[in-house]
Amino acid sequence: MEIRPIAHIHNDFKEKFGLPRQSGMARHLISEIVMEEGYRQPDAFRGIENFSHLWLIWEFDAMGAAKNPGEGRWSATVRPPKLGGNERVGVFATRSPNRPNRLGMTVVKLMSCEMTAERGPILKVAGADMKDGTAIYDIKPYVPFADCVTDATEGFTYAHKDERLEVVFNIPMPKELSGQKFFALKEILALDPRPGYQDDPDRVYAFTYGEHTIRFKVSEDKLIVTDIEEIKK
Amino acid sequence: MEIRPIAHIHNDFKEKFGLPRQSGMARHLISEIVMEEGYRQPDAFRGIENFSHLWLIWEFDAMGAAKNPGEGRWSATVRPPKLGGNERVGVFATRSPNRPNRLGMTVVKLMSCEMTAERGPILKVAGADMKDGTAIYDIKPYVPFADCVTDATEGFTYAHKDERLEVVFNIPMPKELSGQKFFALKEILALDPRPGYQDDPDRVYAFTYGEHTIRFKVSEDKLIVTDIEEIKK
Repeated sequence: MEIRPIAHIHNDFKEKFGLPRQSGMARHLISEIVMEEGYRQPDAFRGIENFSHLWLIWEFDAMGAAKNPGEGRWSATVRPPKLGGNERVGVFATRSPNRPNRLGMTVVKLMSCEMTAERGPILKVAGADMKDGTAIYDIKPYVPFADCVTDATEGFTYAHKDERLEVVFNIPMPKELSGQKFFALKEILALDPRPGYQDDPDRVYAFTYGEHTIRFKVSEDKLIVTDIEEIKK
Repeated sequence: MEIRPIAHIHNDFKEKFGLPRQSGMARHLISEIVMEEGYRQPDAFRGIENFSHLWLIWEFDAMGAAKNPGEGRWSATVRPPKLGGNERVGVFATRSPNRPNRLGMTVVKLMSCEMTAERGPILKVAGADMKDGTAIYDIKPYVPFADCVTDATEGFTYAHKDERLEVVFNIPMPKELSGQKFFALKEILALDPRPGYQDDPDRVYAFTYGEHTIRFKVSEDKLIVTDIEEIKK
């Protein structure tokens, strides 16, 4: 089956590093969804404001997944970072990108749907754990009656859901990183963006967030931001 | 992006007619998921028993959707049967099959994952609102923390979620339709499988359920099963 992108997402996540590993974690991160030409009819979104949340179906492509699905490049087991990176779990028991078909699925909060003359309808959403430029294949309303299974239980992911680091900024914040962008950055850092099996308190990690490079160290349960540098254009 | 079926579903829904129009409705219906060759490694399901529910991503193909996605055969607006079939709503504000990419998404309850010598792992699930033979592209665990948004609200679908018909069997039930199969059939009928805009009390409707043809009439809020006939092989 051939599927085609209907939209792309735009946000401050310029690279894979820094992205939360579990969906539903970066609730403060705001993204814009821009429809591809051919899908910009305002009519296609009629009534969408009746829903508080949406599903996005998207492509793991740019996130380091195997490039040739169905050709043996997926793995039957993966090592979830949150399990320390040592324990192997079946890929269908995880939301890992290394699946036969590289489809991701995320609930986002619908902030607004604005009709623009130049780019058609623009959806503003909160909570998309996707890299800037990620291709979107479907947008569906979140229907609580069907989608919110209140008696659902889960195994190993549950134990880790509330592990958050204390985040300390040892430097002044640039004014561009204030308000919503600051909260989103702090949330992302609290979720510990390091690869799960690294634990070197002296190591400095760096990632790109919007127009800035963020550098930090992690010691015990504390993350210290050591430097924020504007990227020269 | 080219995606390939990893599995197919098998159940008593031999045709589109009779399928619930909203997902999450046919909770008693049991289906079997049989993996395609190449995806039958028992390892790929290691740990899946830790989850009570799963997501299936599947293809609307056999359900009457447009055949050539992205080629102008989708519609910007659709008329949801539950709104009486008259009101037009944007396709991205519905779960309608007539979308640019024909991907469906359903939560199912995991009943068992059995390793078989001949066909590899077989998942038994409850609640799949999909026709027998539907292609499945992904199986993911349902992660309540991310997927169950307890403060999500919805618009027009909500008003209709609890409308159910009284189901009356005016004939004896064949013994093959006892137990679970009987409950699933009764649930499906209570959800009113008629096209949404039809209301003729004398009309007899028929659909195939497993090895039987079910015939019924609907008058006011009552559905009367008039005949159940075994299909000759």
